[in-house]
Amino acid sequence: MTSTSPDSISLAGNTSNKLRSAVNLVNVEKLPGLNTLGISMARIDYAPYGLNPPHTHPRATEILVVLEGSLYVGFVATDNKLFTKVLNKGDSFVFPIGLVHFQYNYGTTNAVAFAGLSSQNPGTIRVANTLFGSKPPMSDDVLTKTLMVDKKTVDYIQAQFQ
Amino acid sequence: MTSTSPDSISLAGNTSNKLRSAVNLVNVEKLPGLNTLGISMARIDYAPYGLNPPHTHPRATEILVVLEGSLYVGFVATDNKLFTKVLNKGDSFVFPIGLVHFQYNYGTTNAVAFAGLSSQNPGTIRVANTLFGSKPPMSDDVLTKTLMVDKKTVDYIQAQFQ
Amino acid sequence: MTSTSPDSISLAGNTSNKLRSAVNLVNVEKLPGLNTLGISMARIDYAPYGLNPPHTHPRATEILVVLEGSLYVGFVATDNKLFTKVLNKGDSFVFPIGLVHFQYNYGTTNAVAFAGLSSQNPGTIRVANTLFGSKPPMSDDVLTKTLMVDKKTVDYIQAQFQ
Amino acid sequence: MTSTSPDSISLAGNTSNKLRSAVNLVNVEKLPGLNTLGISMARIDYAPYGLNPPHTHPRATEILVVLEGSLYVGFVATDNKLFTKVLNKGDSFVFPIGLVHFQYNYGTTNAVAFAGLSSQNPGTIRVANTLFGSKPPMSDDVLTKTLMVDKKTVDYIQAQFQ
Amino acid sequence: MTSTSPDSISLAGNTSNKLRSAVNLVNVEKLPGLNTLGISMARIDYAPYGLNPPHTHPRATEILVVLEGSLYVGFVATDNKLFTKVLNKGDSFVFPIGLVHFQYNYGTTNAVAFAGLSSQNPGTIRVANTLFGSKPPMSDDVLTKTLMVDKKTVDYIQAQFQ
Amino acid sequence: MTSTSPDSISLAGNTSNKLRSAVNLVNVEKLPGLNTLGISMARIDYAPYGLNPPHTHPRATEILVVLEGSLYVGFVATDNKLFTKVLNKGDSFVFPIGLVHFQYNYGTTNAVAFAGLSSQNPGTIRVANTLFGSKPPMSDDVLTKTLMVDKKTVDYIQAQFQ
Repeated sequence: MTSTSPDSISLAGNTSNKLRSAVNLVNVEKLPGLNTLGISMARIDYAPYGLNPPHTHPRATEILVVLEGSLYVGFVATDNKLFTKVLNKGDSFVFPIGLVHFQYNYGTTNAVAFAGLSSQNPGTIRVANTLFGSKPPMSDDVLTKTLMVDKKTVDYIQAQFQ
Repeated sequence: MTSTSPDSISLAGNTSNKLRSAVNLVNVEKLPGLNTLGISMARIDYAPYGLNPPHTHPRATEILVVLEGSLYVGFVATDNKLFTKVLNKGDSFVFPIGLVHFQYNYGTTNAVAFAGLSSQNPGTIRVANTLFGSKPPMSDDVLTKTLMVDKKTVDYIQAQFQ
Repeated sequence: MTSTSPDSISLAGNTSNKLRSAVNLVNVEKLPGLNTLGISMARIDYAPYGLNPPHTHPRATEILVVLEGSLYVGFVATDNKLFTKVLNKGDSFVFPIGLVHFQYNYGTTNAVAFAGLSSQNPGTIRVANTLFGSKPPMSDDVLTKTLMVDKKTVDYIQAQFQ
Repeated sequence: MTSTSPDSISLAGNTSNKLRSAVNLVNVEKLPGLNTLGISMARIDYAPYGLNPPHTHPRATEILVVLEGSLYVGFVATDNKLFTKVLNKGDSFVFPIGLVHFQYNYGTTNAVAFAGLSSQNPGTIRVANTLFGSKPPMSDDVLTKTLMVDKKTVDYIQAQFQ
Repeated sequence: MTSTSPDSISLAGNTSNKLRSAVNLVNVEKLPGLNTLGISMARIDYAPYGLNPPHTHPRATEILVVLEGSLYVGFVATDNKLFTKVLNKGDSFVFPIGLVHFQYNYGTTNAVAFAGLSSQNPGTIRVANTLFGSKPPMSDDVLTKTLMVDKKTVDYIQAQFQ
Repeated sequence: MTSTSPDSISLAGNTSNKLRSAVNLVNVEKLPGLNTLGISMARIDYAPYGLNPPHTHPRATEILVVLEGSLYVGFVATDNKLFTKVLNKGDSFVFPIGLVHFQYNYGTTNAVAFAGLSSQNPGTIRVANTLFGSKPPMSDDVLTKTLMVDKKTVDYIQAQFQ
């Protein structure tokens, strides 16, 4: 019931990417012993200005605790209200099941958070990737009507996700 | 266990809006008799070129059947693959719980669909509204990093959702 | 997640039978993609005077919407009260999980209904068939005491179900 | 968590009725302490030739153990197969959730059984009462088509349930 | 759905052991037909002064009925309150899910009880065995601090469980 | 969805007690916003040689991550096998639902751990307290037979829990 593999949750993730963050989710696929236990865990590393972008877990509520640094976090409730808070070391926060949420390291030092999720297979849907980076892409008709902007703007954003 | 109120599910919805569609979801709030029954229903009307924009139901799988007209429908799986299909009268489709999906009336006549949802309170999250229309808005930092575009483009899209 | 097989839910069922009705239930057995999704669907065709006879779904609540024609529908609550209603095109109705219910096309034109059921494997138990048509048959002792009538009447009804 | 009320489950029920049986179901209504515990219990007394007639529990599987006497018991599976067995003192049997089942004391001495049910509110639907004794009654059209017999036979049976 | 194997639940268990009791739990492992039914059953035999020692079922509430003899039973609530009762033949009792409970035959005749449990795989954890009889044993440090006694007392008790 | 009360989870607990540990469990009672979310959290502080003694959570699996110091942790599986491991800063461990587990700070510096639990109301049962500290106490008969030791030893241990 413990993770001792090379991608161990006790090691820092590699944040050398566009978002400058790394999520190491240990779910039932990586740790078969979680089967039927209804829980999983994640370690998230954030370089300065690193972002874990807006996403949902369709099958889990998440509890996040900050181990190092500070984070600006938020979620959008079903009435489209945005709730945000700054968390310092030792602070915790709950992201209710299915709601869109994010964490942002607005500071100049690294941050580390640990999360417990109430499902052995919580799923992760990054909403911008869903809209702009699906394969094949959503049709221009659907996206221009959804965003209420012109095709050029849609194409510009889609290009970032290729 | 039947809806006989003015907003009856047997009446056409008003599609005179930007998206040219109308969703009448009869959940446990509107029909208290659904309590503990684990199901709800919706009637969706689409004017020509009407769109029910990308959204998720965090607590329900949806079955949709087309009563009139034709619809181009799709959902994005957790590996970011887009699955689409054209549905004609009498055709049905399943949108799995928590996944982002849409329906688009690409034709020149009205369309009507009926949906069953596997929860008395399925919830609806329109993902573009979550990103660009929350109150208060998500910070520019979060959105420019999420979309990987400049602040001007973000502001332009946000303006459509005010 | 869509049914394109020969027994497609968009085709009319064959109502040339004693009950003059046809139920095409698409459950997880017919559509393995429904696995874990907690929902299934059915198309029901009724010739004039066609009946979907009293039955229960032990594992699902059902939402029914009328696509064509009119139906006289009903269910029996746990206090043995019968609730009935006439549904016209576009009307919908909820049959709570486990309760005995029926639909009857009392008119002279065909009727078509579509149903969503809150289980991928709802089960169907036609109660008259259970009493009079089980294999082997229930004993005369049990049936005469249950119906509080003589053996001749029991035998007469059982003969219809052979 | 124990029943010490006058209708205590340790006392014999009154079997002076048409069916010559008495069911004392202790569910959450009678014993509020069962709330959230997901279980209930029943004591069933059978006079000689007493019958607990065909019924279903929409929300519970039942385990029955014979405390005194012998019982002929059975249930009808979803493929309409009837499974039966004679139980003597100390024997037990399982009736799966939602299936129609009965117990019959075919002997000349009293019998007593105790049942555990996997719900604090299992519900009980006696199928013959549902067909022939609902209030108001099911229409003759529905019943004659369901049983495939004439109106006279239907009326005769219905009369027994008034 | 019935147990006809040699370890039938209708036969007396062998109580020739230290605790002078025998539990015959028929769960889904012994009776595969219980799969998905959410219930299991047990027969418990108690010689005079026989004890079913303090234990929990992590996945089930238990209903117990006394078939023969008398039992002194109890459970400890989450606030550490002990609830006890003497049960005679025909009496029943509920042990809520997860709570530590026991039954003791304080009389000079045999006793027999039958239990229904609200899970097909309830699990059983005898708490004294967990503390003193695990393999390998819990460390003396942990046990002396837990019991707030010296190592000698801990060793003495552990020796009984070898 | 955040804890800002005086008993904030970001503050060290008071470990001046016999066990030299402090558990601050934030469940639905302390944080009503957890209602229906199916998760809770705890901060656990351990002075040197501090012990969180053997206990179970009847309704939750637990994920524990070490924020400071080192811990020797273990749980007893249903076959009475003991699994143990030493966790250092950043290491995590899973305690499956219903199983007896403990954490022990065997080192000379303070330790801090954070836990996520898969229920908004996990419950905690300290097994030694259940056996030896219930109110009223378990009878000597039950305890001497359970532990297979004499009354004097039982009385000695019980005295520690007064």
